[in-house]
Amino acid sequence: MRDAYVVGVGATPFGKLDTTLRESAVLAALEAIDQAGIDPGLLEGAFVANALGMAERQGHLGPLVMTSLGIPEKPASTIEAACASGASAFREAYVNVAGGFADAYLAVGVEKVSGIDSITATGYFAYASDYVYEGSCGASFPGLYATIARAHMKRFGTTEEDLARVAVKNHENALLNPKAHLKKKISVEDVLKSTVVSTPLKMFDACPFSDGAAAAIVTTKEIAQRLGGPMVRVAGVGRAGSLAALPDRSDLTSLTGTKVAAAQALKQAKLGVADVDFFELHDCFTIAELVAMEDLGLAAPGKAAAMVRDGQTARHGDVPINASGGLKAKGHPVAATGLGQVYELYNQITGKVGGERQLRGVKTGLSHNVGATGGSVAVTILQGEN
Amino acid sequence: MRDAYVVGVGATPFGKLDTTLRESAVLAALEAIDQAGIDPGLLEGAFVANALGMAERQGHLGPLVMTSLGIPEKPASTIEAACASGASAFREAYVNVAGGFADAYLAVGVEKVSGIDSITATGYFAYASDYVYEGSCGASFPGLYATIARAHMKRFGTTEEDLARVAVKNHENALLNPKAHLKKKISVEDVLKSTVVSTPLKMFDACPFSDGAAAAIVTTKEIAQRLGGPMVRVAGVGRAGSLAALPDRSDLTSLTGTKVAAAQALKQAKLGVADVDFFELHDCFTIAELVAMEDLGLAAPGKAAAMVRDGQTARHGDVPINASGGLKAKGHPVAATGLGQVYELYNQITGKVGGERQLRGVKTGLSHNVGATGGSVAVTILQGEN
Repeated sequence: MRDAYVVGVGATPFGKLDTTLRESAVLAALEAIDQAGIDPGLLEGAFVANALGMAERQGHLGPLVMTSLGIPEKPASTIEAACASGASAFREAYVNVAGGFADAYLAVGVEKVSGIDSITATGYFAYASDYVYEGSCGASFPGLYATIARAHMKRFGTTEEDLARVAVKNHENALLNPKAHLKKKISVEDVLKSTVVSTPLKMFDACPFSDGAAAAIVTTKEIAQRLGGPMVRVAGVGRAGSLAALPDRSDLTSLTGTKVAAAQALKQAKLGVADVDFFELHDCFTIAELVAMEDLGLAAPGKAAAMVRDGQTARHGDVPINASGGLKAKGHPVAATGLGQVYELYNQITGKVGGERQLRGVKTGLSHNVGATGGSVAVTILQGEN
Repeated sequence: MRDAYVVGVGATPFGKLDTTLRESAVLAALEAIDQAGIDPGLLEGAFVANALGMAERQGHLGPLVMTSLGIPEKPASTIEAACASGASAFREAYVNVAGGFADAYLAVGVEKVSGIDSITATGYFAYASDYVYEGSCGASFPGLYATIARAHMKRFGTTEEDLARVAVKNHENALLNPKAHLKKKISVEDVLKSTVVSTPLKMFDACPFSDGAAAAIVTTKEIAQRLGGPMVRVAGVGRAGSLAALPDRSDLTSLTGTKVAAAQALKQAKLGVADVDFFELHDCFTIAELVAMEDLGLAAPGKAAAMVRDGQTARHGDVPINASGGLKAKGHPVAATGLGQVYELYNQITGKVGGERQLRGVKTGLSHNVGATGGSVAVTILQGEN
């Protein structure tokens, strides 16, 4: 196993896009190729993350992307792990390079849901649940995460205000992100007064349905050095799961998959979580960010909300979380999300974010990408070497 | 990069199954686990190949399979590359083991289409075409392969009888395969008289829509030796693509992806194609087997039909092709197909097929799995060491 580096990232804006799946994916990939300054001919393959291609009647996206990039002979498989598809695709691109099977690989995630109405989209999303025991019984994701929120409130006394503060922080961050979907400053009061989606979750506790694509190029140390850009190493990757259906679990306030995947990634990186400078966490619903903080060991069980309240997770707090705006406000184009997180890690570490949203002196970032209610979890750690 | 071995394979019967996607996948995986005699806890992850989960409203199959196998914390991503999903999943399982990221990995492919009617299924299959330029214009796969057949006939003088002989041979082989979908002896006359699907292809030139699952376990040399079964090494894997849409291609009688993927796999295996003892080729339509033979270099362009006519590709000919019955008669459960081929290679090499269908003295087998009209191609070479 050899070291591998991210040399370029790209992303479309997240929100409502007029481009097709292939077009969005290619736009993100071209930005990554351009940033890396790499000859596309050096790419030996790609993983395309996509979960809801059926919304556009398009499967088998890989060859379309490779054909459009002018490298049709290079292989590309689609990877799906629900909302963790993006980071799962990134992991396999990394594995191909670090394992010595290729010198450069592309990972690109893409989603398009704006062509379908919200009820249909919620139904499609529910295909990622254990459909026999959850989706088909009416338990779509707002309901499943509401169940997690209820359990957390009951066990730890977490309040609706605690949840709301996560949304307020992430909306605040997204205001400064030019590619963010929701650019709207909101207050705790706004969240509490917003339409109830599934008690105790309200509209502003939930991420939006977004279109979008994001990409990253992984390559060897030698090629990264030759390209001459910043050296950002893939320090650790973790990939794990949890019991698929919520009813099967003994504890609803924690995701096993997060604990296992984070332990793998940190072990590989030879780091403790306290060594990580900033985080992109999977906040599909506000409760998910609190649960992730606790599973990662950033807060003791039940104590994450206090950290948010005290401003520790704000952009310039001790433990910046979702400086991008997170899924909550940057947006959640399902299979693109994990790669959107990698995009943020790379740009923060290399100082390319710039301006008020640029985190200072950050060298090591961790992203956390969850599929469904934790059936799939992927954790990625990038570390700058310059 | 280290050597990796297949230690167990499994498959459901191909055909119409009453089991759900997860059930079929788990049945195939359990057979592979059982044959290998491996503790499922040693499996460090899985790739689940699936292309048409939407037909059952079930995405995110990985966690369902891992939960059912009693290893919910182990990660599993779905891999889709249309009809090449199975071998693509196998490749990534191999890459994870050979690259040193895991000591044992599961690849399992599964499909279920029998719940939907043929027209709807043909429509779903067409999502794997370049839907903008092919599927949405009415060019579903029978039409696309008919175009390839027409081009081949025009260029090389290939006849409808030549195509029919491929079907006759593969049906003959399937008669002896207890897991085959179509068990019906047919004559050239039967093929020629069968319903026209898309001129010049008739019903008996086409593979059936099948349900089914197939699985393989890849592990290290050390674990394979400890398990004590036959030693079957993954000698080579190749993965490539072709221009996505037929209208973009300068030559319709050859798939670039097959040539590139086969060259990769043979180079890795340090073999020429003449060193391979038997083949499982992707015969979704009869014409596809002829094109594959020519692209692999088993026959010069335009000369494959003569080999079939002369019986060279029959079960006990010089170059046995599709002794399993192939997609044509064994069946084609889309994403399971590539792993069904690996299942056949392993069982032939280890002598587990037995009886009249057992090929004699075979040590090295090659499988060839195509997605759509060659947008994805995966080639796998297994070699017995006992």
